[in-house]
Amino acid sequence: MQGNGPIAILAGSGQLPIQLVEHLERMGQDRRVLAFRGFAAPELRRRADASADLLDLKTIMGTLDRWQPRAVALVGAVRRPGFSALLGAYSLLRNRQEVKEVIARGDDQVLRGAVMLLEERGYRVVGAHELAPGLVAPPTLRGKLAPGEDDARAVAVGLDLLSSLSAFDIGQAAIVAREHVLAIEGPEGTDRMLRRVMKLRQSWLGFRRRREGGVLIKAAKRGQDLRVDMPAIGPRTVAEAARAGLSGIAVGAGSTLILDQEITLALADRLGLFLTAVELPWMESGRG
Amino acid sequence: MQGNGPIAILAGSGQLPIQLVEHLERMGQDRRVLAFRGFAAPELRRRADASADLLDLKTIMGTLDRWQPRAVALVGAVRRPGFSALLGAYSLLRNRQEVKEVIARGDDQVLRGAVMLLEERGYRVVGAHELAPGLVAPPTLRGKLAPGEDDARAVAVGLDLLSSLSAFDIGQAAIVAREHVLAIEGPEGTDRMLRRVMKLRQSWLGFRRRREGGVLIKAAKRGQDLRVDMPAIGPRTVAEAARAGLSGIAVGAGSTLILDQEITLALADRLGLFLTAVELPWMESGRG
Repeated sequence: MQGNGPIAILAGSGQLPIQLVEHLERMGQDRRVLAFRGFAAPELRRRADASADLLDLKTIMGTLDRWQPRAVALVGAVRRPGFSALLGAYSLLRNRQEVKEVIARGDDQVLRGAVMLLEERGYRVVGAHELAPGLVAPPTLRGKLAPGEDDARAVAVGLDLLSSLSAFDIGQAAIVAREHVLAIEGPEGTDRMLRRVMKLRQSWLGFRRRREGGVLIKAAKRGQDLRVDMPAIGPRTVAEAARAGLSGIAVGAGSTLILDQEITLALADRLGLFLTAVELPWMESGRG
Repeated sequence: MQGNGPIAILAGSGQLPIQLVEHLERMGQDRRVLAFRGFAAPELRRRADASADLLDLKTIMGTLDRWQPRAVALVGAVRRPGFSALLGAYSLLRNRQEVKEVIARGDDQVLRGAVMLLEERGYRVVGAHELAPGLVAPPTLRGKLAPGEDDARAVAVGLDLLSSLSAFDIGQAAIVAREHVLAIEGPEGTDRMLRRVMKLRQSWLGFRRRREGGVLIKAAKRGQDLRVDMPAIGPRTVAEAARAGLSGIAVGAGSTLILDQEITLALADRLGLFLTAVELPWMESGRG
């Protein structure tokens, strides 16, 4: 089914689909957007060429078959639907037991399942990092502030922790203060994890909340397919990290998306946080 | 300083100190309770012989020196104070750099530091499980319901995960549905982690919240000193697990405390949850 048509964007929530579409427009590339109802931002929905429910595979596949895209990208967050809803939707296309095994395993497996389904139908599936390399954190990413000694230890512990968690479908991010792990990200996402740490610190002994330090470490998992659920940060991440009293953010170089890179860096400077990219020992440079 | 005096209980929050005191009273054992202000429950404070701020080491040590206890137990939860407050308090007794290294590392390290401090002064430090073995989950723990096939897979994944996290000072508990990790416990505790999963499920696509399954797995870490921060569950854990839509709870046999064991089991039965103990491959039976 692969054609010479436009680039097709299957768009979930957040700023990433919007920034990707803007990038493609600036580059003069033909694109079509299918927005997932209940997820895609209003600003994106206004620019979308079609929309569908997340589990309405018939409409999704029918739309793609019409567009004959030369590449398809799954971009933006979607929340994992309940097990039985997923099972029902995918069982239209595939053996029920097979579907059950895939979706039992975790978010990544579900998304990888979606990629497999698209590839089986002949589509080329690409990642946002391939369509817009300028959105990816370069190894030279750096704001005005540099991590201190405590921060460097926190980053080392955080990377070690995320590496240990690679075998499990969880944990693209963690918050570590010195060597003390304060939180590991689950399906709730980075912003909610940051708010959890903020609350934790507010309640400790009723002490006034102060800048207690700590680092948000965010990185792609070992063996992660960067075409699905690539880690991303943006201005909101920086603002939440500051509210949680952290001293900075470290992201995997070449494998993390930075939304509004200039604004994100400027905000980190203004709020007194460092923002840096670190080489991930388990990633080849820039590719999953 | 070890004497032939009473058993001294240094009491933080929750039901455990109360149940331990009641157990010692039933056994006719002499005991003294020092309640930590801001943590110990009102019911315990009324029975306490002394109270102190968590970081007021002078009062704590002075009280113990007066009591000449034959054993000291640190029981019940305390929230980790801020780094600088801890540093200030402990630096009265020990080299500042040494203290800094210990408290940088995590909750367990701080508690182990407290145990070391007590042992250096000649006190014998014991765990609640040694004073009241009846509070510990026996290998035969079992309610009316048994875990299903999906639950057994979830328990295996959860134990594997907790084992991987043993090197880090986090994660006595996790929630897993089939093979999908929904949450890893941080310093916020089990109840708040359960509420996180409840909220996660409520927000997924606006689907009605149903019993989606999943298991709370709670177990002592590899190499954990059971005299500090021993994992514990009770009726409230069961109620929160039910609200989060879980199908059951699995705890480490011989190394988890069950508060109000009969009530906890009866509540699990009534709310339709299984409650079971599993042998931890990394623990010798019953001892850390």
